[in-house]
Amino acid sequence: MRGLTVVLADGTAIEVGGRTLKSSTGYALPQLFVGSEGTLGVITEATLRVIPLPRGRGAALAFFPAIEAAIDTVTEMFVAGVEPSSLELFDRETLNLVEDRLGVGFPRDVEAALLIETDALEEGGARAALQVATDTTRRHGAVEVRVAESEAEADLLWQARRSVSGALGRIAPRKLGEDIVVPRSRIPEMVRAVRAIAEDVGLRIPLFGHAGDGNLHPNILFHRETEEELRKVQAAAVAIFEKAIELGGALSGEHGVGTLKREFLARNLGAPAVDTMRRIKAALDPENVLNPGKVLPSDHPDAWRDFLIDLPTLSSSSPA
Amino acid sequence: MRGLTVVLADGTAIEVGGRTLKSSTGYALPQLFVGSEGTLGVITEATLRVIPLPRGRGAALAFFPAIEAAIDTVTEMFVAGVEPSSLELFDRETLNLVEDRLGVGFPRDVEAALLIETDALEEGGARAALQVATDTTRRHGAVEVRVAESEAEADLLWQARRSVSGALGRIAPRKLGEDIVVPRSRIPEMVRAVRAIAEDVGLRIPLFGHAGDGNLHPNILFHRETEEELRKVQAAAVAIFEKAIELGGALSGEHGVGTLKREFLARNLGAPAVDTMRRIKAALDPENVLNPGKVLPSDHPDAWRDFLIDLPTLSSSSPA
Repeated sequence: MRGLTVVLADGTAIEVGGRTLKSSTGYALPQLFVGSEGTLGVITEATLRVIPLPRGRGAALAFFPAIEAAIDTVTEMFVAGVEPSSLELFDRETLNLVEDRLGVGFPRDVEAALLIETDALEEGGARAALQVATDTTRRHGAVEVRVAESEAEADLLWQARRSVSGALGRIAPRKLGEDIVVPRSRIPEMVRAVRAIAEDVGLRIPLFGHAGDGNLHPNILFHRETEEELRKVQAAAVAIFEKAIELGGALSGEHGVGTLKREFLARNLGAPAVDTMRRIKAALDPENVLNPGKVLPSDHPDAWRDFLIDLPTLSSSSPA
Repeated sequence: MRGLTVVLADGTAIEVGGRTLKSSTGYALPQLFVGSEGTLGVITEATLRVIPLPRGRGAALAFFPAIEAAIDTVTEMFVAGVEPSSLELFDRETLNLVEDRLGVGFPRDVEAALLIETDALEEGGARAALQVATDTTRRHGAVEVRVAESEAEADLLWQARRSVSGALGRIAPRKLGEDIVVPRSRIPEMVRAVRAIAEDVGLRIPLFGHAGDGNLHPNILFHRETEEELRKVQAAAVAIFEKAIELGGALSGEHGVGTLKREFLARNLGAPAVDTMRRIKAALDPENVLNPGKVLPSDHPDAWRDFLIDLPTLSSSSPA
């Protein structure tokens, strides 16, 4: 993002950011408005920086006997200077649901898989990076590595990722898709915690996400929006949030807070940080006309206990 | 920057940011506090992300008959996928002052030079990138390219950059070092405008900067802090600011606004954007105890006309 036009609460339009690659001229308003989910201003125009299109691509799918092996692989790739354009992580349950749907012979007794995509301005660069990446997966005990030899084969590997949503929908009509983020080194603990939470509450919670930056999407599956089921979903979500926070993580890595996570904001960031956000909101939108009810918590300190029960419907509230 | 401890106006300490690589959890407070130059909170602790140390380095110094040739070179390098770690630009006047001091045989009749540094995790990568870069300089008509064959030779090339400040100090005891930033494609126009402004006001204004991101440091040289000289310096600074703004640029690329540029903030960003900043300042620091007088303009709309005359001393206010 380079420059924005933002309409403020009083109707004034301002330009923030601009056409330069950097600036230290006044407060960081572009970031503030972008991260405000429409509660501080309405972005009506955005100028983006474009980068040269990569001419080379490589893709591979590697299966690991343990989640640690997958994450150690990722860390070692970065240290070796390889920065894949994608590093999609699948846990055992997600992999098996995808295999149920696609029937492409994925091993069923592994704990994790990594879909690795490299790109570069020339084809040679992308292939060289993929070679380092796949060598690294093997050194960390990958039991199988599928390397795409063509664009068509790369598409086939990506089908695994694209079919996740449908695969989950086949076994449960409702889901709450979460979006937590933890430090990369804590991913294995988080994945194990999600599995334990699923067993505790008696729901299936397949998990996938972005191994490079620790952003994980546990998808809490359920069937009907009865209070009984929602209580279980809520118990699972609360336990997931609290574990993510305990591991030094945050409620949302990319999808934002909205209404679903707002009651947890102070538990994650601390009451004084949330109070700072409230002051900014009050200063820029004193009559609370901009996207009211989003991001900032309500005034009821116990609202988080019933955060799901009060929501109208969940079926469309899920990243996938 | 990953996480910060910030002490607020009322003495409360808050933690913002955190240990994760990304987050969409609440307003972008880390960026807001970092860009506030101490006017919204005092940063008492910062956690930084470290990246692997490059093991390979390459350096070259290329001399161009025209400023356009240097900038076209930079653009073509980026399109070819080379991202040098440094791209230091020198104008003709700066080059000649450096040559006066070092006597290393730089050509004196060129319009610009680029000091190019590449780095990579392996030595091969840095050399390959430097080769692409120097090939590009030659294709754009570089009249001489000095390539460092060793760390010692690279150090020698960097001496050109390191000696700028001393070279300027030899011919004038005072300087006002500016920090404007313009879109990269507008650098040639800006360089030519600075030369014209120097002739107009009758001062020497050597210029150097960062060709990759358009951040330029015109250094307005003068001798004594008499009102007469300061009026000339001020006229030059105002003309430089206005040209940078006209070209879609900003007052500061990296050093910030402080007291020196605050009276120009509204001319650069527009009054409503500055008003938005004022509201944030008032909300977070209602008694104006945090770094008062910095960043935000005073209430006198004509203060920019005398911005230099009112400053106590300039000798230490210069980036170099």
